[in-house]
Amino acid sequence: MMTGVVKVKLFIDRLIDEIRRKESHICVGLDPHPDLVPSFLIDQALKEAMDHSEAWGKAILTFNKKIIDQVADITVAVKPQIAFYELIGSHGITALRETIKYARKKGLLVILDAKRNDIGSTAQAYARAYLGFEGQQELSTADAITINPYLGFDGIKPFIKDPAKGAFALLRTSNSTAAEIQDLRLEDGRRVFQAVGDLINKWGSSIRGENGFSNLGAVVGATYPKELHLLREQLPYCFFLIPGYGVQGGKPGDVVYGFNADGTGALVNSARGIIFAYRDLQFPEEEYALAARTAAVKMRDEINEVLSYK
Amino acid sequence: MMTGVVKVKLFIDRLIDEIRRKESHICVGLDPHPDLVPSFLIDQALKEAMDHSEAWGKAILTFNKKIIDQVADITVAVKPQIAFYELIGSHGITALRETIKYARKKGLLVILDAKRNDIGSTAQAYARAYLGFEGQQELSTADAITINPYLGFDGIKPFIKDPAKGAFALLRTSNSTAAEIQDLRLEDGRRVFQAVGDLINKWGSSIRGENGFSNLGAVVGATYPKELHLLREQLPYCFFLIPGYGVQGGKPGDVVYGFNADGTGALVNSARGIIFAYRDLQFPEEEYALAARTAAVKMRDEINEVLSYK
Repeated sequence: MMTGVVKVKLFIDRLIDEIRRKESHICVGLDPHPDLVPSFLIDQALKEAMDHSEAWGKAILTFNKKIIDQVADITVAVKPQIAFYELIGSHGITALRETIKYARKKGLLVILDAKRNDIGSTAQAYARAYLGFEGQQELSTADAITINPYLGFDGIKPFIKDPAKGAFALLRTSNSTAAEIQDLRLEDGRRVFQAVGDLINKWGSSIRGENGFSNLGAVVGATYPKELHLLREQLPYCFFLIPGYGVQGGKPGDVVYGFNADGTGALVNSARGIIFAYRDLQFPEEEYALAARTAAVKMRDEINEVLSYK
Repeated sequence: MMTGVVKVKLFIDRLIDEIRRKESHICVGLDPHPDLVPSFLIDQALKEAMDHSEAWGKAILTFNKKIIDQVADITVAVKPQIAFYELIGSHGITALRETIKYARKKGLLVILDAKRNDIGSTAQAYARAYLGFEGQQELSTADAITINPYLGFDGIKPFIKDPAKGAFALLRTSNSTAAEIQDLRLEDGRRVFQAVGDLINKWGSSIRGENGFSNLGAVVGATYPKELHLLREQLPYCFFLIPGYGVQGGKPGDVVYGFNADGTGALVNSARGIIFAYRDLQFPEEEYALAARTAAVKMRDEINEVLSYK
């Protein structure tokens, strides 16, 4: 007689399934920067809210929902940047929870960009706050989270305990001073980011799914194509979350280095270039969500095109 | 005629003034671990709250306030660990804000342990969320914050812009796997943490106060006295926040290495060993705050004693 063990599908396999099904390798960053969210949304929300911070919470939730409606069929995941929600305080956290719920109901995976890093019961508190309690599928918790590896495996372990949830550790970031620590040369010839890559590979080796990739992925910026290329070769089973596309400077010809020859292995994120596309594309601000769709379709197609040459 | 420029007192000078005034080098970690907060506080809060999460928020606020009342005269600062507040969601954030306000009203400095790390407008959003807008002294914002240096200066800059506020960058953490990245040996002979130390020194060199120390400090764990000693010699103007005292294993004879010969240069944090002292000291749980005072007095005196031999 067989025992009734139900095997949980790994986060990374769910992600890869969705990439195949939607034929899309893109992720939309939900970073509601207070200076860029259309002002009519704040004006509307102020009419119903008790105070400014409640109005902001309501406004960004509306903003996110309409964008999600427009991009859900062409993107695989959304990536809320938690700092912009924390900026609004408790109402921001409520807006974040509702955004996560809404996105998941619409069939999107949610990767929370939080870059959390701590140890022991503190790291566990973060994991429970944002990925939920192991085995409980609460709709208001994310599918995956970004984390910072500086503390070693103690800071990673609590985030990869639940096979249904994933984590992406910062490896090579997209910013201009990334090299200050990440590029330091070790005595064995590797750079720090390459050593961090080897550690991520080791830490994630026991949680590889049916597609070969590990539930512990890595964040590698689009703005450093040379490093992206090196890391892709170094870490064949590590899935890359690639930020820095668009406004930060990453181009289709850059991010292509993050993919394996068969077109797998990476998800490319753009935030401002999509959610605030109404500004660059000169749409009226009321049509920000349609502008976001236009920009997302373009990005999806650009990336699919460069991948078709692989 | 002189123009009316009011010089803002640097965070680090305020901290050093308080250390001298209170003759205390300790900081109390406000880490309200859900399994360790006395259960009667939850039971009480449940009677008045709409739901479990609101009750938890109320319970930890009460818990913190009573501890603050008992330790305000013998400790210089409190260090709330934000993960435990985030775990409770929006009610947790409200409890954190109220805790910060209460502690500051009682004359304590507040160092928020958040280990945030990001770039550009995102890092700025974190800084504004927790340190407030530059020049505005909102009582619900912290005096200083912990940050993670892996992204280089981009991830530091927004947190040290306001001279009234400070930041402590992770340098050598207190956990068992700290060495995996932090101890890697560079080709020039330094270890990664020593290189990070040199960077912190450089980044903070332009914001040194009247006592010589920089507004950008560093987090160095009590559990690695050898590294603490090395770093103290390497970075004479960098103020150290030293976690890992007590429950994590750090002893008075260990933390003494974090201080300069004149007894300046460090603040030692203990969380569980103080706020949950009622368990070890076998006080009734209703007297948890008195137990915290007892443990805090002991810790203050132990550290003052080892410093008197310097």
